[in-house]
Amino acid sequence: MSRLRVNSFSISIDGYGAGPNQSLENPLGVGGEALHDWIVATRTFQQLYGDGGGTTGDDDEFVARGLNNIGAWILGRNMFGPVRGPWPDDSWKGWWGDRPPYHTPVFVLTHQPRESVAMDGGTTFHFVTDGIYAALDRARQAANGQDVRLGGGVATIRQYLEAGLIDELHIAISPMLLGSGEHLFANLDTVALGYHCTERVATAGAMHYVLTRNGIG
Amino acid sequence: MSRLRVNSFSISIDGYGAGPNQSLENPLGVGGEALHDWIVATRTFQQLYGDGGGTTGDDDEFVARGLNNIGAWILGRNMFGPVRGPWPDDSWKGWWGDRPPYHTPVFVLTHQPRESVAMDGGTTFHFVTDGIYAALDRARQAANGQDVRLGGGVATIRQYLEAGLIDELHIAISPMLLGSGEHLFANLDTVALGYHCTERVATAGAMHYVLTRNGIG
Repeated sequence: MSRLRVNSFSISIDGYGAGPNQSLENPLGVGGEALHDWIVATRTFQQLYGDGGGTTGDDDEFVARGLNNIGAWILGRNMFGPVRGPWPDDSWKGWWGDRPPYHTPVFVLTHQPRESVAMDGGTTFHFVTDGIYAALDRARQAANGQDVRLGGGVATIRQYLEAGLIDELHIAISPMLLGSGEHLFANLDTVALGYHCTERVATAGAMHYVLTRNGIG
Repeated sequence: MSRLRVNSFSISIDGYGAGPNQSLENPLGVGGEALHDWIVATRTFQQLYGDGGGTTGDDDEFVARGLNNIGAWILGRNMFGPVRGPWPDDSWKGWWGDRPPYHTPVFVLTHQPRESVAMDGGTTFHFVTDGIYAALDRARQAANGQDVRLGGGVATIRQYLEAGLIDELHIAISPMLLGSGEHLFANLDTVALGYHCTERVATAGAMHYVLTRNGIG
């Protein structure tokens, strides 16, 4: 069974998954980048994007777990880029350079149609204009039995949570306050939606919780 | 310097400090009581209210720390009891029986005047009708150089946070979801108010964070 998973999604102590005022300079909003310090420190991350060093242990295992058995990704448009409204041209190809870290088909939710873009390393960005269910259907087909990973951002995860479509949500609380931005859980009844905490691990860098949907509702 | 402190304030992973629908049967709202399992398990709690057993270690130290150097308490009315509107009579004397666990003057915020009530064990409930600043002034005087502890609930803590009056806020995230209820942090900019995380300890029962105000704002 192909699951829809969120992995390594970082929030602050006060519950924000991104800071305010996302921009080209601050893709995760002001102050939001530090949410991911625990990821950047890991060996898995450093071997992919850094100098090959990095820490092992539980943080690293969570990052690695999030890359395991993933056949497709779904991203909200704001996670793909800062462009709003119609695409002015095809120049924006994500935050990640010529070789994005996905290596699978990536379905970007948007209201603005656009041709698919094939990148180096096996990533192809597809632009889905007919909503979260259609994106999930297409991602599941593309994943061909593997899981689909939902990358974010907050608004997109909330939409999929509210629809009861996320099977497993791994969040990591980073030891910092953000004060404002996009709140992951406020006014979203995860209990009524059938989620409960099935795993918790404290690490040097974060507090990890895995929330699993139990089929209620 | 007498500080205003919040200690051992438990919230859920999704940030709720109490469940919905507080009542005589559910003083902490539906599902809210389990937030405090980590406290009930400790030796400090069990020696005060239980059979004298209980765990030692970090959870216990946090509970004990919260009782150290406290000269007065402040409580919101809902934390004092389920009565709303004018006091029908003097029969309600808190959730805690004849010998409440405070052993100091306790200032209860309410819009409804009432005579003070002296209880066994040194607790006296005073009813303050002229707001959070007046309650803090009276509590500071009564504390006579010791700290003042703000017990809750969520709405009261938020009021004091928004006013920048809390010097130290120790929260404990319990490994559970509540889904709805009273949210401690939503739409409250703790960063703008000058708070930052100065301590974090993971224990068997909870994830502890101490937030301290740094004098900004």
